[in-house]
Amino acid sequence: MKIVTCVAPVNIAVIKYWGKRDEDLILPINDSVSASLSTDVMCTKTTVMGSPSFAGDTFWLNGKEQSFDNPRLKKCLKIVKQRCSPNLPHFNWKISICSENNFPTAAGLASSAAGYACLVYALAQFYEITGEISDIARQGSGSACRSIYGGWVVWHKGALPTGADSIARQIAPATHWPEMRLVILVVNDSRKKYSSTSGMKRTVETSTLIKQRADAVVPLRVEAITAAILTRNFESFADLTMRDSNQMHAVCLDTFPPCVYMNDTSQAIIDLVHSFNEYKKANKAAYTFDAGPNACIYLLDSEVEDFISLVNYVFPKSEAVDRNAYYRGLAQSFDKPCDEDIIKALHLSPYNRGMLKYIIHTRVGDGPKVLTDPKEHLLQNNGSPKTTSS
Amino acid sequence: MKIVTCVAPVNIAVIKYWGKRDEDLILPINDSVSASLSTDVMCTKTTVMGSPSFAGDTFWLNGKEQSFDNPRLKKCLKIVKQRCSPNLPHFNWKISICSENNFPTAAGLASSAAGYACLVYALAQFYEITGEISDIARQGSGSACRSIYGGWVVWHKGALPTGADSIARQIAPATHWPEMRLVILVVNDSRKKYSSTSGMKRTVETSTLIKQRADAVVPLRVEAITAAILTRNFESFADLTMRDSNQMHAVCLDTFPPCVYMNDTSQAIIDLVHSFNEYKKANKAAYTFDAGPNACIYLLDSEVEDFISLVNYVFPKSEAVDRNAYYRGLAQSFDKPCDEDIIKALHLSPYNRGMLKYIIHTRVGDGPKVLTDPKEHLLQNNGSPKTTSS
Repeated sequence: MKIVTCVAPVNIAVIKYWGKRDEDLILPINDSVSASLSTDVMCTKTTVMGSPSFAGDTFWLNGKEQSFDNPRLKKCLKIVKQRCSPNLPHFNWKISICSENNFPTAAGLASSAAGYACLVYALAQFYEITGEISDIARQGSGSACRSIYGGWVVWHKGALPTGADSIARQIAPATHWPEMRLVILVVNDSRKKYSSTSGMKRTVETSTLIKQRADAVVPLRVEAITAAILTRNFESFADLTMRDSNQMHAVCLDTFPPCVYMNDTSQAIIDLVHSFNEYKKANKAAYTFDAGPNACIYLLDSEVEDFISLVNYVFPKSEAVDRNAYYRGLAQSFDKPCDEDIIKALHLSPYNRGMLKYIIHTRVGDGPKVLTDPKEHLLQNNGSPKTTSS
Repeated sequence: MKIVTCVAPVNIAVIKYWGKRDEDLILPINDSVSASLSTDVMCTKTTVMGSPSFAGDTFWLNGKEQSFDNPRLKKCLKIVKQRCSPNLPHFNWKISICSENNFPTAAGLASSAAGYACLVYALAQFYEITGEISDIARQGSGSACRSIYGGWVVWHKGALPTGADSIARQIAPATHWPEMRLVILVVNDSRKKYSSTSGMKRTVETSTLIKQRADAVVPLRVEAITAAILTRNFESFADLTMRDSNQMHAVCLDTFPPCVYMNDTSQAIIDLVHSFNEYKKANKAAYTFDAGPNACIYLLDSEVEDFISLVNYVFPKSEAVDRNAYYRGLAQSFDKPCDEDIIKALHLSPYNRGMLKYIIHTRVGDGPKVLTDPKEHLLQNNGSPKTTSS
């Protein structure tokens, strides 16, 4: 019997990946840049276990058994096994894979990046391969390649038709900019969701602006934000982050039929961040939105308390929601009353209660890692999960 | 004493004007195409009156006296007088101008286009000038130049630095496509408004996609929609109209800080139109949005009843609103129940009541005209309005 358990981080892009040039190999039309977030707050945990006694391969996700006949899962497994030694004693054993997110997938926070990064990292450990694996994670879910590294990460689009150079690289570790924090505002939204995979496919097929973005705009932004990160220039970092989020959603709207991921609450958050920065006379917070209405706000630790006090004023918590369920993640004083001067200066008034589902406070963190404590394993010795629902 | 009263139409663009190359002369960065709407349903009416006994110039708008010291008003008046004969007996008389919209300006329906078209047309009549006047209306409010003509109209951006060739031309009269109708869905919206003038200025200054739109995308669309109008090809007309509305709002979102004019109700209308077309297996309705959340739906008369039945199902009228205030414009059967098959096929369900303020049903119509019946004049012989509030 052989067992490996790993965790991998969620990542939040600041220069967005939107559009593939190769659907099968998952090759993007432009470079992208992200930060990996602390696995202490949000992560995927995956256990891979093999045994000569297992009758077949099994796959459990968030407590529910899934078909192993999942093309992206099988593709990742196939590539890992191609790169390992066929002389491994467990090479031909059947395996059981169990994966769990410690954050609600229903929240609309992209879980596939952390999920495939963790799967590929765990499989790489299990099959004892070394060297580049971000290209394997990329073939599970494009942005998963960025979650293979911690800190600040760039995904080079690459040029080779094989995709061998479409890999992620660390720009700087999390310790390079230790003050960086994220506040994630999870928005209540009842609209039907549509996937980023189909959305970006339709954008590439129908938008008459996407090529300009990918070819002319993004390369300059990747260069500029890399410099901003390396010099810890928050002003420039925030400016580029917000502009690029807006542009990703602009090309989504230029798609036909249009893809609209943000809603009125998202827009109200955008307005609030601009107001906050206007009041502070500098960029002190930066929003970014993925393929959903939730806002990720990048800001430095010195601004977190002020920003959350403003959020609490403008988006009051539903009285039906427990505050321990509402405020998640890193400890923080969430009780600071909003400054009367800001309220007056920005002409703020509260929206209805309950427009936000909850708030997560987290930081930039490390990449995937192996958990050696046997208590961390998600599988029992017979290959079935320790818990069958979560 | 001399008095002239005119009406002029509202126009709704299908290829959008968004961005100026000259703020002062109001010269656009791209051509645009619109239809002028029937003045029977929506119009501006303007009376210009002159008398040797008037002590000064006066200006009344929707029943309220305004300062005559309005730069755009004075500019239009100045150009008209430059083009008329200085030997007119009333050339040096003081004038009184009174203008009224027969639709609520608070509705967010662009009233400045009809307003300046009517002002310039009435001044041209008063000062007896002939020849091109769309370039004068343009200097009051850019899109006003298109309201100088009836039916289908193109505004050529022009190339001369003087703006003399930045004028409107009729593509086809309203009678060319007599079945064309519009259903305008006026959306309840409490957000703060921001003007299209400042929005498009910021787009030109900050969007990295607007140049691609203006230089590479719009010229092809203007050509294609002109052909669609001339051949009465609704399928193509609708496709181009929807794509161009989306792209205008995409470049607004690519503006920094972003300009967002549509809200969740606007998005729900977009979804409904796409669903309707999907059900009908052809483009039978086309949405377009200006700098606000209200939807203008172009469709042929044969589809109006079906479409409104769907709107009534999905966006039920507030019970507090009188149906005569809710359904405006051309007579139509508004009571048709929504087809159960459509509801099932499209998985439709109603939103909360009252998301729409009211619905206007209208058609493409003629350009400005003179009203000769003295009862139509808005001013009394002493130069003051017949009614002082509306």
